Amino acid sequence: MDRRSFLKTSALGGSAAAASTLAAPAVAQGNITWRMVTTWPRNFPGLGTGAQRVADRITAASDGSLTVEVFAAGEMVPALQSLDAVIDGSAEMSHGAAYYWQNKSVGLSFFTGVPFGMTSRELAAWVRYLGGQEIWDEVYDQFGVQGFLSGDTGTQAGGWFNEELTGLDDIQGLRFRTPGLGGQVWQKMGASVTNLAGGEIFQALQSGALDAAEFVGPYNDRALGFHQLRKHYYTSSFNEPGLATEVVVDKAKYQALPANLQAIVRDVCQAEYDQVPSEFYANDPIALNDLIENQGVIVHKDWPEDIWQAGAEKAKELLGEILEGGDALTQKVARSYVENLNMLRTRTERTDLTYAIAREKYFDISDLG
Amino acid sequence: MDRRSFLKTSALGGSAAAASTLAAPAVAQGNITWRMVTTWPRNFPGLGTGAQRVADRITAASDGSLTVEVFAAGEMVPALQSLDAVIDGSAEMSHGAAYYWQNKSVGLSFFTGVPFGMTSRELAAWVRYLGGQEIWDEVYDQFGVQGFLSGDTGTQAGGWFNEELTGLDDIQGLRFRTPGLGGQVWQKMGASVTNLAGGEIFQALQSGALDAAEFVGPYNDRALGFHQLRKHYYTSSFNEPGLATEVVVDKAKYQALPANLQAIVRDVCQAEYDQVPSEFYANDPIALNDLIENQGVIVHKDWPEDIWQAGAEKAKELLGEILEGGDALTQKVARSYVENLNMLRTRTERTDLTYAIAREKYFDISDLG
Repeated sequence: MDRRSFLKTSALGGSAAAASTLAAPAVAQGNITWRMVTTWPRNFPGLGTGAQRVADRITAASDGSLTVEVFAAGEMVPALQSLDAVIDGSAEMSHGAAYYWQNKSVGLSFFTGVPFGMTSRELAAWVRYLGGQEIWDEVYDQFGVQGFLSGDTGTQAGGWFNEELTGLDDIQGLRFRTPGLGGQVWQKMGASVTNLAGGEIFQALQSGALDAAEFVGPYNDRALGFHQLRKHYYTSSFNEPGLATEVVVDKAKYQALPANLQAIVRDVCQAEYDQVPSEFYANDPIALNDLIENQGVIVHKDWPEDIWQAGAEKAKELLGEILEGGDALTQKVARSYVENLNMLRTRTERTDLTYAIAREKYFDISDLG
Repeated sequence: MDRRSFLKTSALGGSAAAASTLAAPAVAQGNITWRMVTTWPRNFPGLGTGAQRVADRITAASDGSLTVEVFAAGEMVPALQSLDAVIDGSAEMSHGAAYYWQNKSVGLSFFTGVPFGMTSRELAAWVRYLGGQEIWDEVYDQFGVQGFLSGDTGTQAGGWFNEELTGLDDIQGLRFRTPGLGGQVWQKMGASVTNLAGGEIFQALQSGALDAAEFVGPYNDRALGFHQLRKHYYTSSFNEPGLATEVVVDKAKYQALPANLQAIVRDVCQAEYDQVPSEFYANDPIALNDLIENQGVIVHKDWPEDIWQAGAEKAKELLGEILEGGDALTQKVARSYVENLNMLRTRTERTDLTYAIAREKYFDISDLG
């Protein structure tokens, strides 16, 4: 998808008005049809495609008994009204990211991504085995909905800058687009943080309203054309170590489904929690290679040390504030998250990380194959 | 599961004779019943439990239209005859690991795990987006079956030793249990490698027939009781950076299923490719903590440098031999694997690894929560 066609359909870009004219699908007698609103432009790489696959796979596995129609961002409601559409009954289901609903409960951010927080494998371990889903259910029960993990981008890139950063001084006052709890951390570090919608970033970089921006990673960022405006690309960061997407369902309608259709919804969401990262892990390196080889992008693997340090210090400070200052339920989410992160990271650091460092250091097979 | 009950039911332990007496399930009219043989003991942590979940989830999602009965290792056939049982029609489906069938095609090892090879995320990206599934299908088409990824242990531990290793000299002639291509690498490094079945390891360590052994990781290894006999535990390695499990189906019978049941089989297998790692990532650190705190186990995060180096050198040599010396189809698998590993690792190393190193270095929140 090129930038132009992305922007044209993007509710994240603010053009939420254009409702599409979807043909009503033929529905066999006795079949249930659910409307799924999404926070993504139609077929936006990895995210819009993931939403469409969830719908198609539920429909296929149920042989149409549960037929899911997708309304991309802006087609029924603007992106950031997706959850409200499920709550008010306009849709039965939404596909998006829980941290978009921080204004309803800060605790929801923990089910998307936390600066210096869980990787996608750690998040799934917490949600599926260590009480994460139950606490998430408690948060969403307040709104009569239920959330399921439905995808993950993997660790995201750090973003696009005019020049190489030499240290923390370079980001003081820098007008930087980065959302969520990660954005709050950059603000604490001294940047001037804005959370523009994805589709608005290009223009803001072009006009100079923004100095720098991060969005997702090479696969998405290339589609938005940021490399045309900023040449220095940081390929790792602490903002979103894994950005999980969610499917939200109307809980009463979900529980009224026959048990096998409930199972299909759960199975498909979980399958997509593997499919979406597969799409990113396969396409990110292809896109990055193109950015380097053909688009003149200069990549930087690491932040300067004092940026990592300040990020870690401020991320810890922010977690401390949430643990102390949030409402009771948000504190409960944060306590469970922190406790389990402390445990889960020991496996990642002892086993996965030790291996990955050794492979990088000792195993060069670029001359094979 | 304690060691005794594991061994009692383990076909991997050689006691394959004991057939269980399973009650025949009630089958509704028109429903299809499939027999799934497995290479795992019933409910063996992460692997037997994963096989059982695949069966239960297919049955639930199809409302019994496709009812799957599990025959654990030894209940219908010995563990290592599972694939043959599907090929000869005794079972419609199996749950195991493709590298058990190296004797049919060395190329199958690449769909389980390769020393210094792909992580679970990289493997899924290759299989789902970069041609891996298609080549796997080519290999299995020779036998009239099809494979699907159905789980992954994550990066495995290095194993159990009598003493701390000071370097490559210490493993010369060491009688070490480690299977697959990883075992061939240790053999090249100078160890005396045996591939005993999981259930035979404890006794061999006890009798002194084995000096050292690796199996999976803390969650499984603790169940087998190795810590009672060896106190030095290496918690990372290059043998199995991710050990993927597979579901194999009789291809003709699979293709004869209605499309929605085919979709359910695929969706459930993919969901389990997330569920199984979640089970390991959640339980490994709990088990490791118990081993350290309560069982007197001394853990070592890293091999001595010359062991990593020799492992990498010999793993590359082995890949070179397969690329040069295998049959045409095995060469094709290996070429695709190596080419895609070279690409996919760039994302892991640039983005995921850079983040994980920084988190370990800068983000200590053990005092929070």
